[in-house]
Amino acid sequence: MGKGEQTRNLILDEAVSLAMKVGLEGLTIGALASRLDLSKSGLFAHFGSKQDLQLLTLRHAETLFQAAVLVPALAEPAGLLRLRALLANWLAWLERDLPGGCVMLAASGEYDDRPGAVRDLLVSGQRELRGVLVKAIRQAIDAGQLDASTDPWQLAFETFGAVLAAHHDRRLLGDARAAARAKAAFDRLIATSEARDPSPEAS
Amino acid sequence: MGKGEQTRNLILDEAVSLAMKVGLEGLTIGALASRLDLSKSGLFAHFGSKQDLQLLTLRHAETLFQAAVLVPALAEPAGLLRLRALLANWLAWLERDLPGGCVMLAASGEYDDRPGAVRDLLVSGQRELRGVLVKAIRQAIDAGQLDASTDPWQLAFETFGAVLAAHHDRRLLGDARAAARAKAAFDRLIATSEARDPSPEAS
Repeated sequence: MGKGEQTRNLILDEAVSLAMKVGLEGLTIGALASRLDLSKSGLFAHFGSKQDLQLLTLRHAETLFQAAVLVPALAEPAGLLRLRALLANWLAWLERDLPGGCVMLAASGEYDDRPGAVRDLLVSGQRELRGVLVKAIRQAIDAGQLDASTDPWQLAFETFGAVLAAHHDRRLLGDARAAARAKAAFDRLIATSEARDPSPEAS
Repeated sequence: MGKGEQTRNLILDEAVSLAMKVGLEGLTIGALASRLDLSKSGLFAHFGSKQDLQLLTLRHAETLFQAAVLVPALAEPAGLLRLRALLANWLAWLERDLPGGCVMLAASGEYDDRPGAVRDLLVSGQRELRGVLVKAIRQAIDAGQLDASTDPWQLAFETFGAVLAAHHDRRLLGDARAAARAKAAFDRLIATSEARDPSPEAS
């Protein structure tokens, strides 16, 4: 990584932290400059406009999410192990107090009514993430771990719901049990989707 | 209802609609005045400050929610019928395109990091709503419809997750099947929580 890229990554880490506080829409080059104690003109060299800054910040948060949640889960064998790793990493991501925590989920509420390039990037990231979840579920079905009748999109929707509720209860209601509740919800989802014994007379 | 109160309610309907677009934090007396084609000073007579306006708007949205979702559900007999009515009304509330749609859920993301009176009101409303859900679940347990081992807080958490996912998928991803997915999630939750037959030899 060159020095220019390193600087830019450090700036984007701060931009993600700032977006956590003020929302992606509240993120301006001026506010970021004053947080970093840099000149606005210096930052304009990196980001030509507020929208560029928002898009690069969102993409940076997505990259942090991929590195923390998706990459280690994809290192697990396909099937239930991978699916469980995905959820565990995701909940750990929401719990941590580091840059990037939940810029995507916060932005979901901010941009659902606000058309434009930021929303488009957000939507495509959310669709991609749902696709990763659906694929992991399909692999667990193909491996015979989940029942063939399982609807992967429905199960992915319900898993996402548990994550959203954990995020809401942790951050708004300050409920320390939120992640454990999401884990319990997911365990029940998996238990009710597990493959039925194909030969009942063997049981 | 006096004429003054009627006027105020009409103004608050508009305030809720505006908050849906710009967020509760973006709601200002100036923006509301220009939407209503009224003078700012006229509105200041109703709301002394931006924060007063935000608090009254949030309370108004909660009142609309209670009238549309809670009151008709509480008219149903306690137990599963009431619980199902709660969910159906809630999903219908999210689907409709009227003032108040989801100011509370949108504000949850806006205020989770922003201490103050608006957040406090929001948190108390969210806790109250969860309490209503928990009570309805407890009544279904007491009526012998749900199994005695059911954890009402866990079931309320999971139900809320399905609602959040429906809200997210409908509004951000434009998925028209979102409400049906939440309904299916809830049906499965209920099915796996239903009272086991106490006398297996009778089956």
